[in-house]
Order: sequence, then C-alpha cells, then structure tokens
Amino acid sequence: MAAKLKGKACVGQSGGPTAVINQTLAGIVQEARRHKEITALLGARHGVQGIFADDFLNLFKVAPKRLEAVAQTPGAALGSVRHKPKPEDCQRLFEQFKKNGVRYFFYIGGDDSALAAHLVNQAAAREDYELRIFHVPKTIDNNLMENDHTPGFGSAARFVASAVRGDDLDNRSIPGVKVDVIMGRDAGWLAASAMLARRKHGDGPHLIYLPETPFTIEKFTADVGKAVQKFGRCVVAVSEGIRDAQGNLWAAIAGERLFEALKDDQKNILGKPKKDAFGHHQLSGTGVLADYLTARIKETMDVGRVRGDTFGYLQRSFPGLASKPDAREARLVGRDAVKAACKGNVDGSIAIKREKGRAYKVHTEVVALEAVAGKNREVPKEYISADGNDILESFRAYCLPLVGELPETALLE
Amino acid sequence: MAAKLKGKACVGQSGGPTAVINQTLAGIVQEARRHKEITALLGARHGVQGIFADDFLNLFKVAPKRLEAVAQTPGAALGSVRHKPKPEDCQRLFEQFKKNGVRYFFYIGGDDSALAAHLVNQAAAREDYELRIFHVPKTIDNNLMENDHTPGFGSAARFVASAVRGDDLDNRSIPGVKVDVIMGRDAGWLAASAMLARRKHGDGPHLIYLPETPFTIEKFTADVGKAVQKFGRCVVAVSEGIRDAQGNLWAAIAGERLFEALKDDQKNILGKPKKDAFGHHQLSGTGVLADYLTARIKETMDVGRVRGDTFGYLQRSFPGLASKPDAREARLVGRDAVKAACKGNVDGSIAIKREKGRAYKVHTEVVALEAVAGKNREVPKEYISADGNDILESFRAYCLPLVGELPETALLE
Repeated sequence: MAAKLKGKACVGQSGGPTAVINQTLAGIVQEARRHKEITALLGARHGVQGIFADDFLNLFKVAPKRLEAVAQTPGAALGSVRHKPKPEDCQRLFEQFKKNGVRYFFYIGGDDSALAAHLVNQAAAREDYELRIFHVPKTIDNNLMENDHTPGFGSAARFVASAVRGDDLDNRSIPGVKVDVIMGRDAGWLAASAMLARRKHGDGPHLIYLPETPFTIEKFTADVGKAVQKFGRCVVAVSEGIRDAQGNLWAAIAGERLFEALKDDQKNILGKPKKDAFGHHQLSGTGVLADYLTARIKETMDVGRVRGDTFGYLQRSFPGLASKPDAREARLVGRDAVKAACKGNVDGSIAIKREKGRAYKVHTEVVALEAVAGKNREVPKEYISADGNDILESFRAYCLPLVGELPETALLE
Repeated sequence: MAAKLKGKACVGQSGGPTAVINQTLAGIVQEARRHKEITALLGARHGVQGIFADDFLNLFKVAPKRLEAVAQTPGAALGSVRHKPKPEDCQRLFEQFKKNGVRYFFYIGGDDSALAAHLVNQAAAREDYELRIFHVPKTIDNNLMENDHTPGFGSAARFVASAVRGDDLDNRSIPGVKVDVIMGRDAGWLAASAMLARRKHGDGPHLIYLPETPFTIEKFTADVGKAVQKFGRCVVAVSEGIRDAQGNLWAAIAGERLFEALKDDQKNILGKPKKDAFGHHQLSGTGVLADYLTARIKETMDVGRVRGDTFGYLQRSFPGLASKPDAREARLVGRDAVKAACKGNVDGSIAIKREKGRAYKVHTEVVALEAVAGKNREVPKEYISADGNDILESFRAYCLPLVGELPETALLE
C-alpha cells in the first residue's frame, strides 16, 4: 500500500451559489476530519481570490453544530467569485498551494471551475508536485457533462416548478398572458423543470422555450395567440438563454435594441448593456427580456392582461425550500471527493450517475477533469416537443425524483 | 327572538389573489353549512362578473376533502376580477341578488371590494330588501383600516422575508448592489416586512423604501453609496409604490421617462405604459422600476455588480409557503362573517383585532363598511427611520407573529 500523502487541504466555492452548495462544503469538512493525512483544511474566501490573498478560514475549527446549520443555508458560506482564471493565474494558484503546503484541493463549482482545476493540475504536473485536485459539481444550470444531474439543480427546479404552479393558479384567477423568465444561460434544464407545474390538461405552463431550440418572435407570438384561443389565457416559461438562429442571446438582442432605440442624448437612462468577467451578457438581475417579450405580445394581439416576471436570484437562494434528494446528494459529492482524493494519486471531477431500475438511486464516479471542463450539456432533443415550444411528459420521470414531491394544490372542480 | 332570514347566500372573490384567500372561502362554506336558513351557497365565478352573468358554482356540493385541498391552494379558486363597480353596477348587482333570492352576500377582497359591498348595501336599503352583506378582508398589501393586519399579508410577508434573507446570503457570496422591488401600491407594509430578513448587524436589507416617505433618486443613490462604503455591498428593499414629493409613482415616472427617451419611430419597442380598469399604473409584471433604479446606481458610482429583481406575482401565489397564523386567520374571518350575518340584521366588514398582552392573540369584530371602503392604512411613522430609508427594529414584534418563524440560516463565523 502506498504511503499516504500528508499535507493541508484547501476548499473553495465558485460561480453562482445554490441552495445546497454548503451541503457540499459540509460533506468535505466532515470527511476530511476522518483522514489523518489531511493536517488542516483551509477554506479559501471567495474562491481563487482567497487563494491568491492567503485569505483562509480554518475549517477544522468550525463546530459540528454550526457546520450543520451552515449546510442548510443558501449562498456560498466561504464566499464565491466570478473570475475565470487565465492559464497564468492557474500557475500562480499552484505556487500558492506549494507555498502553503497544500496537497489536496477541492473546488466546488461549474464547468468553468472544472477548467480552472484542470489548469492548476497541469501546472502541478509540470513541476512534479503531487497535488490531488478534485472538481466537485455544483450548478443550478444542470449542464455538466458526465453527470445525470448536478447538485443545486433539484432545489432550483423545485423553486421554479412551485413558482410556476402558483403563478398558473394566479393566472387562472385573473386570466391573461404571463411570461416567466427562468435562469439558465447555456442549457434549458431549469426552464424545462417548469413542466412539473402541470398536472392536468389546461394547466400552465402552456409553452416552454429553451436555448436548445432557436427562438423567433414570430413563432413565439403565434404560439401565444394559439394558446390564448385554446385556453383563454397563457402561461409561458422562457429560459433567459433563448437564442436566435445564429446563436445570439435574445436577452442581449433585447437590451441592445432597446439601447439603440433611445435618443442619443438619452442613452444614459438605461446605460449600455455590459458584459461580465467571462464576457457574458448580464441575463439575470434585469427585467429587460421579459419586458421585451411582453411588449411583442401586446403589439401583436389584444389581450387585456400581459405580464412578465423574471424569477432572478430567488431561484438559487430561497431558504427553507431545498429539495431533500438534492441536499443529500450535495453532501454526498463533497464526501466522495475527499474519499477519492485520499484513496490514491488521482485527480478528477465527481460525477453523479443514476442507476438503472425503477427506484431512484444514484452513486458517484470519478471522471476526468477534461471531460467536464468548459463543456456544456444540453437538454436532449427527446425531451423537447417537435415544435420546439414545449417539454414532453417523459421529462417528468427524469426530473421529479430530483425535486421531490411538490405541494398539493386543488381546484374546485 | 327574531325569525331567521331564509334565503340563498352568495360569495365572491375579488382583486389580487393571495396564498390563503381560499382558506376564507373554505371558512365561509363550512360555516354556511351549519346554518339552516342558508338554503344554498352560490360561488360567483370571477366575482361581480359571475353575479352579472348568473355564473355560479353550487358550493354546498363541494366535498369536504376537496374543500380542504382547495383551502391550501393559492389563487382565487372561484376566479377573481379586476373590475371596480360603478354605482349603477352596484344597483344591477342588487337586482341580480333579488332575482336569485340571495339574502346573504360575502365579498372577499380589499378596500375596493368593501366599497362595492357598501354600494350594493345602499341599493338594497333603498328598496327595503333585507340583504346581509359582509366584506371579508383579504389583501397582501395589509392596508385595510380598522384591521391590525389582513389575511394574505402574513404569507406574502413570509415570502418576502425569506426571499430577502436568501438574496442577502447570495449577495454576501458575490458582493455588489442588489435592488429588490416588492409589491404594495399604496402602503409599504410588505416592503417593510423585508426587515425580518435581518438578524445581525451587517445583514441586509441595508435600506428599505416605502411609499409613505417621498423618494428622491439623489437620496437613494447617496444612501446606497454610504451602505457600500460601510458594508462593501448593499441589499435594498424597495416598495413598488414609492412616490416623489408630489405623490407620483416612481414606477410610472420611470416607465414614462423611458418611453419619452425612445426615438419617435421606436416607441413600439416597449409600448406606451398603460393603466388598468382602476386607472392604476401597472406596477407588477414589469421590471422597469428595478431596471431604472439600478441604472441610476451604475450612473453615479463604480460598483462591479448591480442587479435588480422584481419579486412580482410569486409573492402572492407561491404554494406550500403560507404562514400558519395567516392561514388560520383567513379561515377565521370567513367563518366569523357567516356567523355575524346569521346572527341578526347587520352588515359590515370583518376586522382582525390584536389583543393586548405578551402572547399573540387575535379576535374579529364587525366594523362599518364605510370605515374600510376605499380607504388606505399606511405604515405608521413610528416604524420608519427618521431618515426615511429603513424600518425600525420595533416593527419585528408587530410583524413576526403574522409570518411565523423563518427558516434558520447560519454563517461560518
């Protein structure tokens, strides 16, 4: 048996927080305490920022009771970061680890974090420094390759399915057209989960649009018109990541068109649409897409009430609503990352695999960092209606076990 | 003892639905079943619309089990309506009642519904037709006179307090400025409830703005700037009903300014801001106010992340989140309305009164329709900070019993 690699471990959280990201942190802390070769566990504040600045928290000092309370808490307890490390940053990260005697690194995040982990790993390999690196999956977007689903998604989907069910009941009370914009930049999983709100014919959402299918305003308004004729109302779930046939984000198009439509001396009223550190257009935290889409509906048809809501940050941060399977699995991936790292000289990403069989059951596997890094897993075509404006009933069997049972609701008839 | 007034009863739901409006309906059905003088209970579909069109549901036919399931369901199960009846409409409503042998009318709604009930009552009195009319309180806005609070508010406040707590944790993870726009056209109770999200110094919301205090952009951006300096971030709760010194809604000003700023041939991109049947500007179902306010912040200071969310219809319709005291009291006002109507020739509005003493306890009283009709109850000055940009800690004792305990959250330190 090989000698155990002794040294400090470091853990960081990256990207958009989720309702269960701290379950993963708690899993890492709990499991690391069981391995004597891990001499200390450094919690990097705000991910790579904390590693650069030697800004660490001694996580072995956190009392188990507090750790449990933190595990139930949405948001990244260590602080997160929106910073895509360049190759030279990854070299510096490695040097910081070397300087601090870090031998284990656990990075909780999405596909960008997996890429960063991969680059740090390569820097360590070049210098023959044994560093065990694990990417630990987290994203409400559910878009990591190799995974059946990702921690954070089930809870966000639970929020979305509940919200759309409530919203559909509201719309039934006072009929009209309602557009709900749902998070998901590169994949429509979360918008697709709105289908769980539907139980009987006539229930909303009546239309669901994902980034996976090119979106045109003409088709959209025609679809809404048909639904209104059929149901006397229409509830629409739209992914914030919907794109035109060329792959341009409609949220960006709407923002730019609106900006261009302003008089030259009035541009400041909204300000120029900005991009973030990743070169991404801002999608959440603005109502522009919903307002643009509702304006297109008002323009093309005469419906009394047309409203748009953008679910925004509530989807990933609402306390007390976490899906139980999601919380459990978020803990699991954290524990399993530490177990795998302590087992031998291996690096990788922890992936959730669903087992075949009638009962819902999962296990984790170690997959290569490259298999996840910087990649995007789309909603398979088999779940999308031929028309591209709805999610098929088969998606329920995939999604419901991740979300848990939803609150019962009933109509008078 | 006077002979009991025998005849049919009618019930309707009006205005914006809530998470517990069907608890009130269930309370009315349950209690009406106990009174033999009520020969039938007609559920008017979509409020006054159903009364005009003889579109009724026989509510005595609804099985008790289904009624309980409906009681737990958000949205108005009978359908609601946004229609402010004119005096001549109220005359017609009365005539419909007379034609259908209706002797009891229960109208679940806000101050507009109380006004409609009052006018119908006057029409009945003119013809000496004995009609017992009760307005039964419902509004997430919590703005009915004579009431300590109103059914619907506690559940909406529970949503808002939870959402802002989660959002504050999210903002703590990736610091920046976050503006959350909260429902409440004429009174800031719901925005004020965001203060429940705060537990320790440094927790958001760091600023809270209500319609009760005139709002200026200059003060707002200066306040945000100070909070960012102090906390390195800032979470702001803003009522959708904030007004300038002349009483104009900022949501309307923002919408109009944006419309005016558009080039003449581009006006259609957003469309002209519309008013509803009440002559009200649309406040919810659009992100304009949040987008306008975040643009003002970006314009005046250099903060990396500035985001705005408009909580929208989720606040009043989210299933599975109802406050327990709110659900209980919503049932109570329904039952008590029927009891009062059956007791003798009296009309009025049911009001919730809080009893003095340490333990939270309420009872209902019958108050005059005129005392509630068309009136607005503002948040008292005593709860608002001298600066007009926050809610004082004393509000917690008022609000928390209505909301129930919130989910626990914890930080690592």
